[in-house]
Amino acid sequence: MAAFDTTEHSHRRFNPLTGEWILVSPHRSKRPWQGQQEEPEADERPAYDPTCYLCPGNTRANGAVNPSYDSTFVFDNDFAALQADVPTGSVNVGGLLRAEAESGVARVICFSPRHDLTLPEMEPAAIRRVVDVWTEQYQELGARKDINYVQIFENKGFMMGCSNPHPHGQIWAQRTVPADPAKETVQQQAYFEEHGCSLLLDYLALELREQTRVVYQNEHFVTLVPFWAVWPFETMVLPRRHVSSIEQLTDVEKDSFAQALRDITIRYDNLFQISFPYSAGLHQRPTDGQEHTSWHLHMHFYPPLLRSASVRKFMVGYEMLANPQRDITPEWAAERLRGLPTVHYKQAAT
Amino acid sequence: MAAFDTTEHSHRRFNPLTGEWILVSPHRSKRPWQGQQEEPEADERPAYDPTCYLCPGNTRANGAVNPSYDSTFVFDNDFAALQADVPTGSVNVGGLLRAEAESGVARVICFSPRHDLTLPEMEPAAIRRVVDVWTEQYQELGARKDINYVQIFENKGFMMGCSNPHPHGQIWAQRTVPADPAKETVQQQAYFEEHGCSLLLDYLALELREQTRVVYQNEHFVTLVPFWAVWPFETMVLPRRHVSSIEQLTDVEKDSFAQALRDITIRYDNLFQISFPYSAGLHQRPTDGQEHTSWHLHMHFYPPLLRSASVRKFMVGYEMLANPQRDITPEWAAERLRGLPTVHYKQAAT
Ligand SMILES: O=P(O)(O)O[C@H]1O[C@H](CO)[C@@H](O)[C@H](O)[C@H]1O
Ligand SMILES: O=P(O)(O)O[C@H]1O[C@H](CO)[C@@H](O)[C@H](O)[C@H]1O
Repeated sequence: MAAFDTTEHSHRRFNPLTGEWILVSPHRSKRPWQGQQEEPEADERPAYDPTCYLCPGNTRANGAVNPSYDSTFVFDNDFAALQADVPTGSVNVGGLLRAEAESGVARVICFSPRHDLTLPEMEPAAIRRVVDVWTEQYQELGARKDINYVQIFENKGFMMGCSNPHPHGQIWAQRTVPADPAKETVQQQAYFEEHGCSLLLDYLALELREQTRVVYQNEHFVTLVPFWAVWPFETMVLPRRHVSSIEQLTDVEKDSFAQALRDITIRYDNLFQISFPYSAGLHQRPTDGQEHTSWHLHMHFYPPLLRSASVRKFMVGYEMLANPQRDITPEWAAERLRGLPTVHYKQAAT
Repeated sequence: MAAFDTTEHSHRRFNPLTGEWILVSPHRSKRPWQGQQEEPEADERPAYDPTCYLCPGNTRANGAVNPSYDSTFVFDNDFAALQADVPTGSVNVGGLLRAEAESGVARVICFSPRHDLTLPEMEPAAIRRVVDVWTEQYQELGARKDINYVQIFENKGFMMGCSNPHPHGQIWAQRTVPADPAKETVQQQAYFEEHGCSLLLDYLALELREQTRVVYQNEHFVTLVPFWAVWPFETMVLPRRHVSSIEQLTDVEKDSFAQALRDITIRYDNLFQISFPYSAGLHQRPTDGQEHTSWHLHMHFYPPLLRSASVRKFMVGYEMLANPQRDITPEWAAERLRGLPTVHYKQAAT
């Protein structure tokens, strides 16, 4: 029998950031697909849409009027999933019915006044402005006594539950540390105690040596498909220097971060020549007042598409009940992404 | 300030089966939705479809011909995510790039020869036959030395990545115990050691006392919306008697199980008067040769719909990066499901 080969044989890969395994089925990428084909989204939008509740000067559902902003604009989500003024309290019936009040804040960040743009179509300076807003928000919310974790994220595309195509992201910030950052805290802490250095920095060194999963690198940031990626074209963007949160980045590093974001989102759009859907977000140290030296800032991109603009990976059935699973290998995905042009297809065409 | 109220205030609920928390935002169910509306699936199908690779007598992609089966039919998945003949082997670079071969079997179970039916439209005796096939498969695969866990599940509807509407489910059985059953093993074991009884049986007793989340009950089975449910209309079906796997059910109990399955799937279809999409599956003790006395057999239903046939709950952004989150409360969902007719809308209409 042939030797074990991760490009041919079903296998599991370990995610040291969460401590969990994922199932990889590299031989399965050739299976036919008779299922749902989602329509690529119509991508022609005006620069200003009078019916959009995120455009400058427009009135939102609750009557508030947006300012005539010309770069970014942040406001409290009108339908926030987290409430700041929740009375403390809890329920505990037999240790099995347990609930406790959770307070927090949810905000919306408009990335640009232009209704027709998305991150990859924005100027580097405008993306840098988004990085600055993330930093300001992380600092402002993180300084609050009632907020111990700040989740900054973006849902892009209707396929990812995004209810408005105006370029925007969100922040949900809350009293407790949510599940995924909590797992990453435990894992990074344990690694740091054992090895005296950062898990992700050691990991990055391995990836830079192997190069097979690296998609892009500049002076301060690297984009790669993690060895343990779950989504077909999942990537992680991380700094070369050990920083625990976005506020520790220097000005020059923030420019490099903006460049890396521009690069990966352009590659994504170029992959199937559509506005590429994803959920993406920053993971950084909890704002609970502890130092969290082991925490290494990074950003995850989780895009749903698998084989074309209309064939997505469904995380259903086995994945919901048993274990995450992927078909194409991370190495193959990285190679595809690496080979793509770095000029946006819409700009290349004109 | 008003007292903490789980019907009004954002809160977290604890899932004792997995040891994880979920975020509940009951006040958020009124938010407007401008996002993706998925088309309800066309639901008119012939009893036999010559192009369907699951119908009796038809030829599959790999040239195999289906028998003229008249109840259920099981075959090895032609595009299996798990391979039986994988050479053993592993990768370990610096403890951070870790992979290991994983072997297993993937099978497809046709529930009925009729292309136009689904579980809730099938006769009780035909559903009972499906329960029997699940039992046979669990026993046959579980007896194999190379298989330590058998995941039986169904993806229903294109929205849930189901590539063929012919009524069918799947089995993925493998060498290692996947993530979710592994968590449930740890949690049930710990509870059993501490209390000397089954976590789910104690939980069931509490639910039967409170009744607020119970949807249906017969002599041997109960269907309820778990206190910690993540999906809007998520349910769990569980036996009143402590059994660790499906093979321990008596004949009469299997009839009751089939009745409970018929009931919940009919309620689901009646909720929005469509063929209701979901992923569902059995959780039961690993087949690793250990006794697993603490394991209590149960079935999870995870349906994606939230507010209508076309408005689904998206588990994106915050949910992918931070923590599961739901809008309507489990109590409200249970009340809706409890109030629905128990005759299928298609049969009531004729
Ligand atoms: O094998 P199928 O039914 O084509 O595939 C479906 O179920 C599998 C198991 O839940 C998933 O991995 C796939 O993403 C989904 O499309
Ligand atoms: O608040 P939005 O953008 O309308 O809602 C979207 O993002 C949220 C946070 O990821 C999710 O909980 C919702 O399911 C999704 O539709």
